[in-house]
Amino acid sequence: MSLNLNQLGVVKRNIVRADKAAVEKLSRFGVATIHEAMGRVGLMKPYMRPIYTGAKMCGTAVTILLQPGDNWMMHVAAEQLQPGDVAVAACTTDNFDGFFGDLLATSFQARGAMGLIIDAGVRDIDELEKMGFPVFSRAIHAKGTIKATLGSVNIPVVCAGALVNPGDVVIADADGVVVVPVAIAQQVADAAEARESFEGEKRAKFAAGVLGLDMYKMREPLEKAGLKYID
Amino acid sequence: MSLNLNQLGVVKRNIVRADKAAVEKLSRFGVATIHEAMGRVGLMKPYMRPIYTGAKMCGTAVTILLQPGDNWMMHVAAEQLQPGDVAVAACTTDNFDGFFGDLLATSFQARGAMGLIIDAGVRDIDELEKMGFPVFSRAIHAKGTIKATLGSVNIPVVCAGALVNPGDVVIADADGVVVVPVAIAQQVADAAEARESFEGEKRAKFAAGVLGLDMYKMREPLEKAGLKYID
Amino acid sequence: MSLNLNQLGVVKRNIVRADKAAVEKLSRFGVATIHEAMGRVGLMKPYMRPIYTGAKMCGTAVTILLQPGDNWMMHVAAEQLQPGDVAVAACTTDNFDGFFGDLLATSFQARGAMGLIIDAGVRDIDELEKMGFPVFSRAIHAKGTIKATLGSVNIPVVCAGALVNPGDVVIADADGVVVVPVAIAQQVADAAEARESFEGEKRAKFAAGVLGLDMYKMREPLEKAGLKYID
Amino acid sequence: MSLNLNQLGVVKRNIVRADKAAVEKLSRFGVATIHEAMGRVGLMKPYMRPIYTGAKMCGTAVTILLQPGDNWMMHVAAEQLQPGDVAVAACTTDNFDGFFGDLLATSFQARGAMGLIIDAGVRDIDELEKMGFPVFSRAIHAKGTIKATLGSVNIPVVCAGALVNPGDVVIADADGVVVVPVAIAQQVADAAEARESFEGEKRAKFAAGVLGLDMYKMREPLEKAGLKYID
Amino acid sequence: MSLNLNQLGVVKRNIVRADKAAVEKLSRFGVATIHEAMGRVGLMKPYMRPIYTGAKMCGTAVTILLQPGDNWMMHVAAEQLQPGDVAVAACTTDNFDGFFGDLLATSFQARGAMGLIIDAGVRDIDELEKMGFPVFSRAIHAKGTIKATLGSVNIPVVCAGALVNPGDVVIADADGVVVVPVAIAQQVADAAEARESFEGEKRAKFAAGVLGLDMYKMREPLEKAGLKYID
Amino acid sequence: MSLNLNQLGVVKRNIVRADKAAVEKLSRFGVATIHEAMGRVGLMKPYMRPIYTGAKMCGTAVTILLQPGDNWMMHVAAEQLQPGDVAVAACTTDNFDGFFGDLLATSFQARGAMGLIIDAGVRDIDELEKMGFPVFSRAIHAKGTIKATLGSVNIPVVCAGALVNPGDVVIADADGVVVVPVAIAQQVADAAEARESFEGEKRAKFAAGVLGLDMYKMREPLEKAGLKYID
Repeated sequence: MSLNLNQLGVVKRNIVRADKAAVEKLSRFGVATIHEAMGRVGLMKPYMRPIYTGAKMCGTAVTILLQPGDNWMMHVAAEQLQPGDVAVAACTTDNFDGFFGDLLATSFQARGAMGLIIDAGVRDIDELEKMGFPVFSRAIHAKGTIKATLGSVNIPVVCAGALVNPGDVVIADADGVVVVPVAIAQQVADAAEARESFEGEKRAKFAAGVLGLDMYKMREPLEKAGLKYID
Repeated sequence: MSLNLNQLGVVKRNIVRADKAAVEKLSRFGVATIHEAMGRVGLMKPYMRPIYTGAKMCGTAVTILLQPGDNWMMHVAAEQLQPGDVAVAACTTDNFDGFFGDLLATSFQARGAMGLIIDAGVRDIDELEKMGFPVFSRAIHAKGTIKATLGSVNIPVVCAGALVNPGDVVIADADGVVVVPVAIAQQVADAAEARESFEGEKRAKFAAGVLGLDMYKMREPLEKAGLKYID
Repeated sequence: MSLNLNQLGVVKRNIVRADKAAVEKLSRFGVATIHEAMGRVGLMKPYMRPIYTGAKMCGTAVTILLQPGDNWMMHVAAEQLQPGDVAVAACTTDNFDGFFGDLLATSFQARGAMGLIIDAGVRDIDELEKMGFPVFSRAIHAKGTIKATLGSVNIPVVCAGALVNPGDVVIADADGVVVVPVAIAQQVADAAEARESFEGEKRAKFAAGVLGLDMYKMREPLEKAGLKYID
Repeated sequence: MSLNLNQLGVVKRNIVRADKAAVEKLSRFGVATIHEAMGRVGLMKPYMRPIYTGAKMCGTAVTILLQPGDNWMMHVAAEQLQPGDVAVAACTTDNFDGFFGDLLATSFQARGAMGLIIDAGVRDIDELEKMGFPVFSRAIHAKGTIKATLGSVNIPVVCAGALVNPGDVVIADADGVVVVPVAIAQQVADAAEARESFEGEKRAKFAAGVLGLDMYKMREPLEKAGLKYID
Repeated sequence: MSLNLNQLGVVKRNIVRADKAAVEKLSRFGVATIHEAMGRVGLMKPYMRPIYTGAKMCGTAVTILLQPGDNWMMHVAAEQLQPGDVAVAACTTDNFDGFFGDLLATSFQARGAMGLIIDAGVRDIDELEKMGFPVFSRAIHAKGTIKATLGSVNIPVVCAGALVNPGDVVIADADGVVVVPVAIAQQVADAAEARESFEGEKRAKFAAGVLGLDMYKMREPLEKAGLKYID
Repeated sequence: MSLNLNQLGVVKRNIVRADKAAVEKLSRFGVATIHEAMGRVGLMKPYMRPIYTGAKMCGTAVTILLQPGDNWMMHVAAEQLQPGDVAVAACTTDNFDGFFGDLLATSFQARGAMGLIIDAGVRDIDELEKMGFPVFSRAIHAKGTIKATLGSVNIPVVCAGALVNPGDVVIADADGVVVVPVAIAQQVADAAEARESFEGEKRAKFAAGVLGLDMYKMREPLEKAGLKYID
């Protein structure tokens, strides 16, 4: 059975997670580097921010589709989490309630989850920091939720502007959140590594005072484009 | 004389503050717990954020109604502050100016105030952190204000979406700001305590790997609601 | 040749920077004090925030006009930076991409720049903090940019609502960002010093419990304005 | 039994509506005039806009407190509506779903309601315009809602920043929405009438070229305030 | 060759468009009805609004992925448009520039396009209204764009929070924009028809004064949920 | 005496207005065309919108700097308005109050003003439409203002992100607002005319089915950039 985006009332138990080696390799690189390695795609909107300084994570997505003001599916998702997973929660409409707090985090952590990405609000953020359970969210809000309406778990979701399929690799750090499709995880990890290998050399040149104008040979194209220097 | 919401040009000197024992008890609980204990009401909008990490407060409200770009009433309010009070400032229109800085904070602190909740902007935030004077605001802005137009002190105000009457208990922590009406302060404090007493046990179960699905007996209602598991 | 605001395709090499002594003196005061000393003008919008706690800077502006999603002019600007300069980047339209990261920061730092003010996004913020390179921006976003379209360097720009001419003094701290025109830098520095000299005395009085009502003799004007005290 | 702000699970059947004569008189004036007559208070936030050009209403409030994504209380409220009432709906959290459409409007209209003020979203706006059923909302959104959680009817609510008690007079026109407390409805209507009576004369003078500077005798206070004319 | 979401530099010429009969049938229903018929999914964010009153459209999607400030792909897309298509444009980052005006509209209209859905800005809106070329956008902005960087045509895109695959049916009216996946277009059209058929009867009952409380038999579930009526 | 940007407490009486012939010529073109003719600069932010459909204006700027919640300078400005002027009002901080209504509009109209551009709020919009007095603003708000603090008239101001000097030409239509510096008004008018003259020919070609790909010879550069067509 194939699942549609945003289909309601379904939990998919068997998902294909990205290869562990690819995930481990991706975990060594930053979000900016990985999205460059993918061709500048895959980023969530910049309103997604870590709830505490230093929060970061890398893992395979277990996706959750929530209804506004209702966190029932969080409990359903807990059972589907495996060690190394990242919970990725979208909502059927814009909502800023606190769908997640320290109790659910204790449960998710006990299941081996690496963290939570949620296009909505969370609460108990001091406790979450003490637990070392990283969360990226669009809001911090004490507002509690009910358990009355079905969403889904492990269907494709659009979260903060990015499509996330279950099993995709999700990487989050201080620069934001990026999603790497499971099919290209290894290839992107390799490309990120290649990209990173050039950075050290460039950094040394910049530190020594070499200009990007010269390093990247930009003077000629700038002149062709018509740039004028005046005194 | 009874005071209307947002009435201008009035200072009420004698207000009924919540009982000290109730305030002290409420100070032991977090904002999320207290709003749950009240039945999920009483929260300010989530755009109200602490100006420094770790800012928190609990006290009885002295309310202030400001005019845009004018902080005259802050000085009027200072005289009404008593030890244990929290200043709660609303504005007659959306305004992000810096109505409050380190000098006023020195005055408020000398009066025994616990902190400030303001639906507008503040400045001198580094100094405020050094002084240990907590503030929750909607903006940080260096923009100064004038002293030309009357507002009021100790009238009912709507601050960040919440109604605050003078004397109400206001609690603020990393999760936001909640207002407890003076008439139910003790009852809410007791309800918060009762609620908190169950948390430890739940946390232990979650940590041991018990799922919310089982702890809260959700499997049957989920099935009744039509949730389908697929492979 | 005189340059217009926002003129495209031009780099001005010789700009008149504010006097070093005035810049040094301004660096001793906070943003709130300086904007007061100028008559409450010169502030950028409060959406400009430091990318890490404690970021601050004071220096002479090298201005940059960017095109959306294009950071070519950042490299052109690097060559124009001198020790003590602050790079100030505006964009021809609202854009949140990450125009600046640790490589460009290495280059800017090697040129002696004090930091960056950008009305757009930046990335690599953890590395920027480690380098001690302060940035104030409207967004943090991993999104990379291209190098295809001409903007300008050292023309007048509107950045976050403030007009910035090359050579102006730009001061940024936890309270925001203020721009001091080169022609009045010394005069504003002196006025800030005079203003600051009164603060200590006032603070001591407030700390001792004196009310602003009495210190500023507000009781009479408040009564004239019609303020009523009730019990 | 007295009702608290935002109390959940309650419907009050008998409310004291503002006097019909006062409501009728208020209906003759615009929102700007009425809020001036009250002393510049009582306005909702300016994000509340009519869903079609020309929408306007004046009536007595039947208040509704909604839960996010849930319009159950709309049906409960319908039964409480009497001819001349305006339904005023707040939500326990920010929510933009379409809680109301042409079917509910048909029901409300059959009950004699004058329109709806809702701090959330609505849909079927073309049909609502055809029906001549005015609505002021913060959003237009096709998103449907469920019927699962209790809110309340005829309790005090904060709607778009304004406190509304059941029975208060609510007036909405192209300039926004204003709330007149039931206790002062007649007095405000009279003040609005007095205010309006001066407008015609002023308008004629302005049209004849008389300046506000002269009409309001502003030249001397401006000079005292320090205004300088230069050439 | 399979195409990834947001893949850059690709134009797919042969796409599977939804069946004409299904599209025609869907064109008879409103956006609110269709999203209900799909189970309350498929809506774009409510910030997508028509540029003129009365704008509406229904057709098969030709998707476009734009770069910020660059409308090159609009011209590439024109060639792929067939009679009955709707152009659906997303951008790799938030951007409000005017990517589209009356000249491109003339070209699109000559190709038989039904309109444009764009998660960015447009201009020449008076001319577009005169031409009868409907557009739904997030902004109106005169700001022009360049033609320098590759995006793609007819790949899957996320537009205003909704996933759109080429060939999907896109319906837009005063209530917003909904996307019907090509695979379920007929089924959704039938469900919308079924749903609509009940509306007339309900409307008649509501108009006759029957309450939703009785029509939907809500009194008992409300009582069970604990709703209390007081006087 | 030279005036600084945002200087407070000053009214400049003699300003150099753009040449009448240039203004008249600019009035024939749309905002999009004019900003293109200037090299894609000079636009205000897209949040500036007409208060009624069809509002448009073209004239020479009389600038106004307002204080938050205070419209005193509007009356001072009235005296400086001459036939053909457009009033352009900025505020020292973000403010959404209704600084302007039908009485001031009557005065401005009597002075010969063409309309108002205001980076704040206005009210009485139905009356303004009836009077045919066009206004572009960032908000519509009934909130009244006081007359207590000095701003300035005819100094340079930053309005909605654009620098406006007194005497500049300001053009507003459905696509937004553009500012043409007085020194280049004639040159921009001529460039706009030249640009417009090509539009008719292009439109005819597009209408006849010619693609932009061919008209602008884009196929080769697209191929060079790497665009791939697939089936």
